[in-house]
Amino acid sequence: MTSSSRYFAGNRRVDALPDHDRGLSYGDGLFETMRASRGDVPWWPAHWQRLQRGAQVLGLLLPDENLVRAEGKRLLESGDGVLKLIVTRGAGGRGYAAPTDAEPHWILSKHPLPPPAPASGLALRWCDTRLALQPALAGIKHCNRLEQVLARSEWDDPTVHEGLLRSTDGDVVSATAANVFVLHKGAWKTPLLDRCGIAGVCREWAVAALDASQARLAVTEVEAADAVFLCNAVRGILPVARLDARSWRPHPQVMELQRLLAAEHPAFGTEVS
Amino acid sequence: MTSSSRYFAGNRRVDALPDHDRGLSYGDGLFETMRASRGDVPWWPAHWQRLQRGAQVLGLLLPDENLVRAEGKRLLESGDGVLKLIVTRGAGGRGYAAPTDAEPHWILSKHPLPPPAPASGLALRWCDTRLALQPALAGIKHCNRLEQVLARSEWDDPTVHEGLLRSTDGDVVSATAANVFVLHKGAWKTPLLDRCGIAGVCREWAVAALDASQARLAVTEVEAADAVFLCNAVRGILPVARLDARSWRPHPQVMELQRLLAAEHPAFGTEVS
Repeated sequence: MTSSSRYFAGNRRVDALPDHDRGLSYGDGLFETMRASRGDVPWWPAHWQRLQRGAQVLGLLLPDENLVRAEGKRLLESGDGVLKLIVTRGAGGRGYAAPTDAEPHWILSKHPLPPPAPASGLALRWCDTRLALQPALAGIKHCNRLEQVLARSEWDDPTVHEGLLRSTDGDVVSATAANVFVLHKGAWKTPLLDRCGIAGVCREWAVAALDASQARLAVTEVEAADAVFLCNAVRGILPVARLDARSWRPHPQVMELQRLLAAEHPAFGTEVS
Repeated sequence: MTSSSRYFAGNRRVDALPDHDRGLSYGDGLFETMRASRGDVPWWPAHWQRLQRGAQVLGLLLPDENLVRAEGKRLLESGDGVLKLIVTRGAGGRGYAAPTDAEPHWILSKHPLPPPAPASGLALRWCDTRLALQPALAGIKHCNRLEQVLARSEWDDPTVHEGLLRSTDGDVVSATAANVFVLHKGAWKTPLLDRCGIAGVCREWAVAALDASQARLAVTEVEAADAVFLCNAVRGILPVARLDARSWRPHPQVMELQRLLAAEHPAFGTEVS
């Protein structure tokens, strides 16, 4: 599967992104990155709900859901892979004031699946880049992602798979492109995302599956955890094997969670080694 | 002058923004909004220097300066107005990791001058939206501008011209699209932009012209000021007449600064009433 993009304005397919797109100017938009299986997206309802929450926060209009899903299926051509959707506020000329009547612009693209995670688990590092505290934008998957870009640029060692991010206050928030869960004495916990971070679709599923608590998470709690995993909606549940000098053996509860996800959404079965 | 956009990849003009642009995906880019006069940009060197500082912070490549300036002049067709330049990191597929060999994408657009500021001065309000503290991105004019979009969406009363923004710590930082200066007992002060905010080109000029100090600025210092002005590189020096219930009469030092700017850069002469 090669990458390709399709552009839309309101309900119309267009050859190119219209001029003065506010996504391009200001990151004034939202996105979803979705696992596709046999030409459809198993977690579509959860992705669309998060998009709706983001649209409410930003006060922007979404295109028609049925049309977007149908165009996504057409692009996927019954295949597997990753479907990415960007929705921007549309065209808005120069200046921050958002036009109230702009029709949204949206872009669909498909991408190959990332290579499978190593069977032994991921190796992580701590990032120096911190996430700023901005409650007004916390949780939603908006297009202002320079913090993640800066954090991901901190390493190019291919044996390090992901980096953990702290807020400017020092709490652990997430990886650059995944949420994080830790196990302590039989109880699962994931960071509360009320001040920064993205509330992932797979995170939401795992919180329910594990009855996990959501609260501030300290660096020491990660380092002292009995097990750690990352998750996102493309790669599912990703066991962590190493964080700098700390290492973990595969944990039965994490393997059980992987099996549970694969049973609910067979597309994720391939991640289970 | 009607709005129009021209797209470039590296040194080539292209018909449309190439697929998978990282500016569109993540706001992974920089911009400059420049006053144009008789087909050129009087403050070009200062704008390009700020762009270079931003490119260094983000680790992205800039296109050739002479080519960008020449294309800007060609677009302006000897006219007056506003020239906007966006430079993005280029194409990068899916994922935050930035390609090291991407050629930058850039977009030039021209826009009409905004209507002149009221002769009596601007009316301001306080915004509820706060600016997050992110030292890693402070000062540069990057394309992650959702905070400004949210702040500008707080009012639609056309008699209110701008809104003042505080940081999440409560300090005054700027207006949504301008920097702010206050006068106290003969000394000028403007917020230090080490944790958030954009270091404007006109701000830099005014700091030197007024020998202004740069430090944290409290709300009470604005309200108790002898004079307040906003400034940006499109509209120059903008006296403030009102901030909620507080009002100011035109101040001779602000009028003198407007005259000084108009003398150095005649394009700004039209703003002096």
